[in-house]
Amino acid sequence: MAVEKITSLQNPRIKQLVKLRDRRPRDEAGVFLVEGYRQIRRALEKNIQLHELYVCPEWFLGENEPALIEQAVAAGALVVELSKEAFAKVAYRERPDGLLAMAPQWKRSLDDLTLSAEPFLLVVEAIEKPGNLGTILRSADAAGCEAVIVCDPVTDIFNPNVVRASTGVLFSVPLVVAESTAVHAWLKSKGVRMVATTPAAEKLYTEADLRGPLAVIMGSEQYGLSDFWLKNADLPVRIPMAGQADSLNVAVATIITLFEAVRQRT
Amino acid sequence: MAVEKITSLQNPRIKQLVKLRDRRPRDEAGVFLVEGYRQIRRALEKNIQLHELYVCPEWFLGENEPALIEQAVAAGALVVELSKEAFAKVAYRERPDGLLAMAPQWKRSLDDLTLSAEPFLLVVEAIEKPGNLGTILRSADAAGCEAVIVCDPVTDIFNPNVVRASTGVLFSVPLVVAESTAVHAWLKSKGVRMVATTPAAEKLYTEADLRGPLAVIMGSEQYGLSDFWLKNADLPVRIPMAGQADSLNVAVATIITLFEAVRQRT
Repeated sequence: MAVEKITSLQNPRIKQLVKLRDRRPRDEAGVFLVEGYRQIRRALEKNIQLHELYVCPEWFLGENEPALIEQAVAAGALVVELSKEAFAKVAYRERPDGLLAMAPQWKRSLDDLTLSAEPFLLVVEAIEKPGNLGTILRSADAAGCEAVIVCDPVTDIFNPNVVRASTGVLFSVPLVVAESTAVHAWLKSKGVRMVATTPAAEKLYTEADLRGPLAVIMGSEQYGLSDFWLKNADLPVRIPMAGQADSLNVAVATIITLFEAVRQRT
Repeated sequence: MAVEKITSLQNPRIKQLVKLRDRRPRDEAGVFLVEGYRQIRRALEKNIQLHELYVCPEWFLGENEPALIEQAVAAGALVVELSKEAFAKVAYRERPDGLLAMAPQWKRSLDDLTLSAEPFLLVVEAIEKPGNLGTILRSADAAGCEAVIVCDPVTDIFNPNVVRASTGVLFSVPLVVAESTAVHAWLKSKGVRMVATTPAAEKLYTEADLRGPLAVIMGSEQYGLSDFWLKNADLPVRIPMAGQADSLNVAVATIITLFEAVRQRT
């Protein structure tokens, strides 16, 4: 099925794939890497146009790989087989599963979002760790958020660890990257209420009305919300904490707030 | 301040410290490793008797280390200085901070727990990943659980990654390891209601009464709850899920359920 087989670690394509772990070469090429069966399957389900699919049968974990490869080929992907060593070099997983795709990056702006009558949105500011951003995407998907807006991003949404931690949700939940001021103006123009989580708030998140058009705003891991959002959000709320002051990380605080909104909205 | 300095990677003590990453040597020696400033500080705060404290000033990140070392010495710890290379070998962090302690393991049984009039407990079954168990401990602490009971453990509670992911909560939240049947009988005898989270339940977790004496029961990552708990819990509940079927991992499902209980109980 593969048109080509690469065995040399010195092959220029192998070198290029390794480079794509870094943001700059990724942005320059306008592509990113999607590793692993589950992630690639989800990309195909969402009609992400995979440019290339690198495979290595010696790393396969199950029996479903040929069907997935067939599906990728049918969707127009070029299949390249790698030797075991070459695949280990391009994979970022410690124990790769023999499947790595190259997909085109996309760019969505606020205007691309189509909102429902009662939007339920998540806005995250300057998240630093790719793993946290991926987990947050997954949580937003589970809670049924219509879109996730990443303000003033520190981590690249196409970082391999975002793709991994999101378990492919990156392909299904609409994701927009924009500046905080633009996001605030846009939310205001759409009549969406902005509820910001901060330990400094007086009101408990469970006492706030989280029904109707809602955007939950979450700050970064290290600094929390910026002054801009603290000042410009409609309502600050806090999550009560019984134990150590730093017991809730941002991904956990996000899921708690989102699911309280789900409870109130249903 | 150190009584001794070890520079040789062949030193028997270095080899022993490396071995303590594995469970068997850890159990045989009855000790475990606590790495990092924050974790060691918490251990000292909770009067954990640190046997030894390994330090390497070349790895220090801040200026608070000498005070912490002094505190450990005052609490009876023996301080050993390591060369940069030796420390890197015994550390399990990629970027160590020059502080590693050896602490005695402990064993708590169900009878050691003193319950309040309206206990709020978390029971987890057969959690596989140390990182998940650590995150769950942290969440239980944030939610104000009185104790965490680990049934039929797959991962060792003294695994370095449990210590790390719990950010030291391991030292503050009472943690008991026991068999499911014993835990069930004990909870029943104490009049504690057992609410088990499973996707198969009809009732939503938000529709269940989570006040009064409560134990939230969570299953393992891969298999969910065992038949034993599905059959013997008082009430199965489910968390609604909007997105992909596997969007909530066990740590996230735990935090959602615990904080709904907190909401109802306050």
